[in-house]
Amino acid sequence: MKEPVTIIKIGGQVLDQRQETIDFLKKLISLPHKKILIHGGGKLATDLAGRLGIETKMVDGRRITDTETLKIATMVYAGWTNKMLVADLQALGISALGLCGADLNLVEARKRPVQEIDFGWVGDVSAVDLRNWTLLLENGILPVMCAITHDGNGQLLNTNADTMASEIASALVGQYSVKLIYCFEKKGVLFNPEDEESVIHRLDKKDFDLLKTNGVISKGMIPKLENAFKASAKGIQDVYICAARDIYQYQSTGTQICLFPNPD
Amino acid sequence: MKEPVTIIKIGGQVLDQRQETIDFLKKLISLPHKKILIHGGGKLATDLAGRLGIETKMVDGRRITDTETLKIATMVYAGWTNKMLVADLQALGISALGLCGADLNLVEARKRPVQEIDFGWVGDVSAVDLRNWTLLLENGILPVMCAITHDGNGQLLNTNADTMASEIASALVGQYSVKLIYCFEKKGVLFNPEDEESVIHRLDKKDFDLLKTNGVISKGMIPKLENAFKASAKGIQDVYICAARDIYQYQSTGTQICLFPNPD
Repeated sequence: MKEPVTIIKIGGQVLDQRQETIDFLKKLISLPHKKILIHGGGKLATDLAGRLGIETKMVDGRRITDTETLKIATMVYAGWTNKMLVADLQALGISALGLCGADLNLVEARKRPVQEIDFGWVGDVSAVDLRNWTLLLENGILPVMCAITHDGNGQLLNTNADTMASEIASALVGQYSVKLIYCFEKKGVLFNPEDEESVIHRLDKKDFDLLKTNGVISKGMIPKLENAFKASAKGIQDVYICAARDIYQYQSTGTQICLFPNPD
Repeated sequence: MKEPVTIIKIGGQVLDQRQETIDFLKKLISLPHKKILIHGGGKLATDLAGRLGIETKMVDGRRITDTETLKIATMVYAGWTNKMLVADLQALGISALGLCGADLNLVEARKRPVQEIDFGWVGDVSAVDLRNWTLLLENGILPVMCAITHDGNGQLLNTNADTMASEIASALVGQYSVKLIYCFEKKGVLFNPEDEESVIHRLDKKDFDLLKTNGVISKGMIPKLENAFKASAKGIQDVYICAARDIYQYQSTGTQICLFPNPD
């Protein structure tokens, strides 16, 4: 039987609140089994860009990454956010290790080809080093991974953190029994974004396509869910979207992502 | 017989020049034995602070670290500089891993007590985790360490990179046969700072004290050399100061640090 590994992605708004972050980490570390934490960056990158007079360009919820923006993303995600999380986990007695994709070549990417949009220094994941992930996990280390990757030729790249989580989960599924949990500020995927209680507890691909078409699911939730379904299609049985504060009881409060409708 | 480990500290001005950095890394990786790279930050932190309107305060060549300065130092050293070096080493086929002291609790520090000067969030090294250093080295990893540490209670701290190198070297000396090389832009310790050819090839503690007293050795060279002598006093036989470009032939071109005068 494969050993379980839980991959948790923690998103922006939670990371902006120090106390919320620490509460989240305390819950996270009491989850059973081996874990990997993947994090986004929060407002800090946008704030820093603003203070430096650099405009943040977004298309379809994705950041356009010019050279200055890449530098800011690397400094904030791989520097400040990552090392703060590591220091907090160490204070909780956890052997955490802060990483980006270039470290140990854990996640390699290719610069996204210019088509309709030039995303700049944005990388699409091309390879995940299973051997080095295993080395870390088998030595009792909690990897804390930001969404900066590299192309293997010395170029750092900015990658979507949801995609990182999905790709790492997919790469580990042959070796481990993988759970993938996307944590953010909402309870799960909502029928009505205004109503926190309207959680869709089970979302299949057909319903997702329908809800996307009629606009119930929109903006940043679309790429997040596409990443979740991609992981599901790679054979990860447990894919959930839940609130960071509900990480203990994600199975009862959040949204389970399933490729196919419930047979009953 | 203990296995050799070479600890190389690379300083500011070399890191400001992309091509010089890559040339240095190429030479570095062709040195025999296991290696650890420890790096400073270069001008980038000062530049970024300037762009953000934050004044960089220095006393005796050491940075005063307020909260904003700590954030900048962490972003620049642990983020941009560290991950660029890792990406460059990966491009050269080396399994590099970017680190700060909080990662795997590799280097813990205590906030420097306020005496005559309040250094702010500056940390003095209090513990080095030999077990985790060994884990990395024994797995063929080249650790790339910046000079950000933590206090074990969730606080990041700014530590002098020369001190980091000296403390890590001292901690590993029981397990490995350690060489410690401080690389920077000059050929070594100079009798005359204006004359690159005036290298002191062998500097003992007594001569150092003399040259310090009469002002031949001054400013940033003093803490660097104090760190070098401290490592030497901990039993590290090979402590050198040399130019980054001379890393191949540091023994013939640079300055060897010896506690005691040559007996002959």
